[in-house]
Amino acid sequence: MITEIITIGDELITGHTVDTNAALIARYLTDLGFSVRYRTSVGDSLETMEEAFRLALKRARLVITTGGLGPTDDDITRKAIVRLFRRNLIFHQDLLDDIRARFKRRGIEMPAINQNQALVPQGASLFPNKYGSAVGICIAEEGRIFISLPGVPNEAEQILVDEVIPYLRGLQVNKVVKTIKLRTTGIFESKLAELIGHEMKLESGVKLAYLPSYGGVDLRVMATGEDRQEATDKAQRLVRHLEESCGRYIYGREDDTLEGVIGQLLIDNDKTLAVAESCTGGKLGELITSVSGASGYFLGGIIAYANEVKEKQLGVENEILEKHGAVSEPCAVAMAVGCRGLLNADYALSITGVAGPSGGTEEKPVGTTFIGLASAHASYARKFDFGARRDSGRARATYAALEMLRREILDIK
Amino acid sequence: MITEIITIGDELITGHTVDTNAALIARYLTDLGFSVRYRTSVGDSLETMEEAFRLALKRARLVITTGGLGPTDDDITRKAIVRLFRRNLIFHQDLLDDIRARFKRRGIEMPAINQNQALVPQGASLFPNKYGSAVGICIAEEGRIFISLPGVPNEAEQILVDEVIPYLRGLQVNKVVKTIKLRTTGIFESKLAELIGHEMKLESGVKLAYLPSYGGVDLRVMATGEDRQEATDKAQRLVRHLEESCGRYIYGREDDTLEGVIGQLLIDNDKTLAVAESCTGGKLGELITSVSGASGYFLGGIIAYANEVKEKQLGVENEILEKHGAVSEPCAVAMAVGCRGLLNADYALSITGVAGPSGGTEEKPVGTTFIGLASAHASYARKFDFGARRDSGRARATYAALEMLRREILDIK
Repeated sequence: MITEIITIGDELITGHTVDTNAALIARYLTDLGFSVRYRTSVGDSLETMEEAFRLALKRARLVITTGGLGPTDDDITRKAIVRLFRRNLIFHQDLLDDIRARFKRRGIEMPAINQNQALVPQGASLFPNKYGSAVGICIAEEGRIFISLPGVPNEAEQILVDEVIPYLRGLQVNKVVKTIKLRTTGIFESKLAELIGHEMKLESGVKLAYLPSYGGVDLRVMATGEDRQEATDKAQRLVRHLEESCGRYIYGREDDTLEGVIGQLLIDNDKTLAVAESCTGGKLGELITSVSGASGYFLGGIIAYANEVKEKQLGVENEILEKHGAVSEPCAVAMAVGCRGLLNADYALSITGVAGPSGGTEEKPVGTTFIGLASAHASYARKFDFGARRDSGRARATYAALEMLRREILDIK
Repeated sequence: MITEIITIGDELITGHTVDTNAALIARYLTDLGFSVRYRTSVGDSLETMEEAFRLALKRARLVITTGGLGPTDDDITRKAIVRLFRRNLIFHQDLLDDIRARFKRRGIEMPAINQNQALVPQGASLFPNKYGSAVGICIAEEGRIFISLPGVPNEAEQILVDEVIPYLRGLQVNKVVKTIKLRTTGIFESKLAELIGHEMKLESGVKLAYLPSYGGVDLRVMATGEDRQEATDKAQRLVRHLEESCGRYIYGREDDTLEGVIGQLLIDNDKTLAVAESCTGGKLGELITSVSGASGYFLGGIIAYANEVKEKQLGVENEILEKHGAVSEPCAVAMAVGCRGLLNADYALSITGVAGPSGGTEEKPVGTTFIGLASAHASYARKFDFGARRDSGRARATYAALEMLRREILDIK
């Protein structure tokens, strides 16, 4: 069923609030098999709202709006609905009783203005709201369904999950959609596409999307079928192809994170980790400790920003710094080895690079970074170029270091 | 000028990615005085895209899109543009040379697929992209302006700020808007509103917005006038009131950051800084070194996640850990003092807390954090409660540590 989501509010239109409701609703509806084709945001203006509603009902069979159901003057969604559907607002005593009781439980007398929320378009079904005073509104007319939810995110989600989804499920037999996300790192989007084969013909009803970020490229497989089995089978066939063509770059699925996967590997192998960071200044340690339970394997590290710290704390020989510089393979190796010894860890990772924007040379332009790894068996460093931007370069270095460790532990060459 | 923003991508329509580009663009354009009236998202479908573009050009005079300019098969924005404007795609040798050089600098041969990105609609102006291979595209026709930017957020923002905004500014005939942003930290939004006086009557055409984030609360003053002088005068009058009522919490303006302000203070006073981090795992060091030129004052630090590291590297006495625990005032002080001595720094900051979600007790619930400071003159720690969420708690702790240092240096009680 073709669906449009409309989110309402001046704060969305001016960008002062990031629109999370639309993504939330879209995700639920897509998983349910609805085809969300349009997403629109409009401000708190009656004309624009009515115009957007009218257009949505023309091009979609299901329209879901959020926002504008509150008690104050700028909450005019109800007004736009009754204009559009040529209905009246009807007063509901039971709703008013509910709202009044809600205030009473908090020990507050209901402000008179909240009476507005007991006015509902004639003939609408209502979806109760557990967390607030604005109920959801549903109008079905001429094969079209129009649903309005409040804009407060937790209220919108509660009504969506408890009321709207069961209602929609009962309406019709949709096609079923199965999505699988594979997470890759250590390879560019275009190179990945080459490995996968970009001229590969996909089965009908199957889509493949590349979603790049600093941490890597996610591959999202989306397959549509008449039932769950068909959709799942189609998705799995493409996933198998992806695993065969670029499996070594895939570190996880769905909500897996590289730092989480590394943590689990260390726990499984009963190993500890320490870090020595120069240009990233603590970012690698921060990422590792963003995982709850990191104290089970992460000991800590040395932020060796100044060369004296590299020498004194990590024991990097002055000769290495003099001869090769702090951004060099020998220095990265010495940092990792020194850190591993100092903190008595099984593995140590080191990062040293030219984060920029200044400090680059012809031989070592901004972005040049060496990542070192030391273990009981080996110590080595690899050279990378993470580009001229300080923030993205440091983020990329952090993920690349984790990926080096993943490959070391799993013995991926 | 009535404006519509269209963001493109299946990941937006299905809700798998939250749309941050639309909010970003809307904020910049609103500040510039443009009236963003519509925001739409569509998936990677040629028909829907063309339909959305056509509608947008009918109801808005400026249309900005993001997404779909990459090299792979699902990147079809260029196709939709040429269909809509009935133009051809023209091959640009210089663009291809640029893209090839970009890959070469990173030591990679350009995949053949990236050649697509050298195809540009006939007669379009191009906005260069510093961080990626997809250039921005601008078509002006019949009093309408159509601009396409890449979907990667940092690329979209760079082109927007460096190219699009100067271009749009040249076109403008609106009322003039002056915005001034004051940045505060170390105080809650509601407390700030009390200091400022929330029943204060603002001049006509003047708006004051509170924009809270983990780092503090920004105050955005927006004044509209017939000319630049009038708008600026109005804005300045409100700014003076804000400085009088809550000046001690204001650390900067506009693009100032707390970490940048701290850096400048350290440079001005010719002092050095080191950090000792437990629960933040490197986040404070990372934030400090996000400032280019941090090597002028930041030496480094110790990530003392495990208690052994606190003892061995920082010299925290075992008795303190036994008696008071790692999350305690004496431990925070000992960490700062130990770190200052070890790295021979003028100032040292320490953070130790219960980041959660587990590990909390009745006496020290999740969020309990001690921040320590050591200088030549003093060493002390303060207790904070940063709430039960791991990510926001760690971010708040980081900013609170910097604010303690700012107050120490500036002698703000």
